[in-house]
Amino acid sequence: MEHAADTVARDELAGMGRDELEAFIRDLILQREAETRDPNMLTLIAWGGDLDRIWPTTILATTAAASGMDVAVFFTFWGLFSLVREEKRVTGTNWMTKGMSVINRPSASHAGLSKMNMSGMGPMMMRKLAEKNGVAPPEELLAMAKELDVKLWPCQMTMDLMGLQRADLIDGLGKPAGAATALERMQRSAISLFI
Amino acid sequence: MEHAADTVARDELAGMGRDELEAFIRDLILQREAETRDPNMLTLIAWGGDLDRIWPTTILATTAAASGMDVAVFFTFWGLFSLVREEKRVTGTNWMTKGMSVINRPSASHAGLSKMNMSGMGPMMMRKLAEKNGVAPPEELLAMAKELDVKLWPCQMTMDLMGLQRADLIDGLGKPAGAATALERMQRSAISLFI
Amino acid sequence: MEHAADTVARDELAGMGRDELEAFIRDLILQREAETRDPNMLTLIAWGGDLDRIWPTTILATTAAASGMDVAVFFTFWGLFSLVREEKRVTGTNWMTKGMSVINRPSASHAGLSKMNMSGMGPMMMRKLAEKNGVAPPEELLAMAKELDVKLWPCQMTMDLMGLQRADLIDGLGKPAGAATALERMQRSAISLFI
Repeated sequence: MEHAADTVARDELAGMGRDELEAFIRDLILQREAETRDPNMLTLIAWGGDLDRIWPTTILATTAAASGMDVAVFFTFWGLFSLVREEKRVTGTNWMTKGMSVINRPSASHAGLSKMNMSGMGPMMMRKLAEKNGVAPPEELLAMAKELDVKLWPCQMTMDLMGLQRADLIDGLGKPAGAATALERMQRSAISLFI
Repeated sequence: MEHAADTVARDELAGMGRDELEAFIRDLILQREAETRDPNMLTLIAWGGDLDRIWPTTILATTAAASGMDVAVFFTFWGLFSLVREEKRVTGTNWMTKGMSVINRPSASHAGLSKMNMSGMGPMMMRKLAEKNGVAPPEELLAMAKELDVKLWPCQMTMDLMGLQRADLIDGLGKPAGAATALERMQRSAISLFI
Repeated sequence: MEHAADTVARDELAGMGRDELEAFIRDLILQREAETRDPNMLTLIAWGGDLDRIWPTTILATTAAASGMDVAVFFTFWGLFSLVREEKRVTGTNWMTKGMSVINRPSASHAGLSKMNMSGMGPMMMRKLAEKNGVAPPEELLAMAKELDVKLWPCQMTMDLMGLQRADLIDGLGKPAGAATALERMQRSAISLFI
């Protein structure tokens, strides 16, 4: 019996040449890689809603997606307001959340600057400079991101906190997600950034 | 002699069937992985001390730890003030560091907002909204993090700079660490974020 | 014929002992690792130009480089102003970009604070505290980074937007790069942070 088993094993490996062995090993490496870290996966946490943050977020997302990467952006806290429809002037479900949307005007189209906002002069100038240099504004980059199949996930907890409803947000978003979903994806992402 | 060695090698491999070979390879992959990148390791740099930053930091840390991840948070710069005991009104070892703690009230319990702070109205409203939605405040999430064995590391350099002493900080922290320690851990972490 | 081929394959593997097989597998793992994730590679996006952000950026970059890591810093948005020569008072190519440089004084040597700036009192105090504690100012850390072969990349798009010219920036920088270059490097980096 033992002699027979030994012969089978010997035959199995004996049938595997060096090239086949190498292919077998590489395959196992890639298999494990797919489970643990995909070199092609990018996840961004869009925390900031100001023009100077939503710009890098959307530039990185569209550039990566255009080069074939699998991109997801998780919009949380101030970042979630970037996803509000341009025409929505007031959002919120009570006086507090309504008041916030009045002070901090929602939508990427109306984003301020974290520095040198100067009552909107700063953002206006930035947009002019961008136009002169052929850089698309963030609301256009968001539309481009959708066309490039970038996953845009609104943070469920922020929606609840800030009283934002699905109808307040632009079309084409993924379904609202939580921190656990974002973490699970970041675990497998080659690049994860908090912006 | 040569003939004998060849026979031994042939026997070693001959004794290894395809399944055994696969297990052997997988084991070596995991071994290297443990040395280089642990899919289960999360490291956060808690740079910001405002409510809108310390909240994502503590939400991510506790969510990850609750799902079994190995989490460490390195508190540096403004983030370190989140770890000051609630009852400490003034910290610092000279007029400059004391003055700073008076202007920028320490402790997560008294954190402001980076936007819409409105002399404390903003943070108060945020806390109300959180309570209504069942989101724990950051000081509670910090306590939860400790229970979940999240490593909380104060940055030694910031302690020196800001004149913060071990006794100013809450209990249950890891020992003060430096940039080198944070980097070494981030090298092996599946996710590293600067918040 | 078949019998002959089988004999060759058997001989190839038969000549490989367990140690040799292990070395062969480890080699393939490292080969793939070098293509996908280098445990020794750090990439920082220096987005912020304030003292409280450019300090962590330069401290992490120099600490990592000193311990032998391969470090690149991509300076974008406000971060790019840190690379402006100290003596340059005004930068920009039109009234808007010139105006910005007047309001937001460029160069790491003149960086403000994102909090408690107090018309420059805050940064002055921070620098004093740093000096007392033996922490080098960011402009010195930038010089140190260059000596340690840290790659310092100005963002081309920001240069265009902000009207910054190569001659406005300090010596020893890498050539201006874009988001695609930064992404490509981050894909292979063990640590990527947006600061």
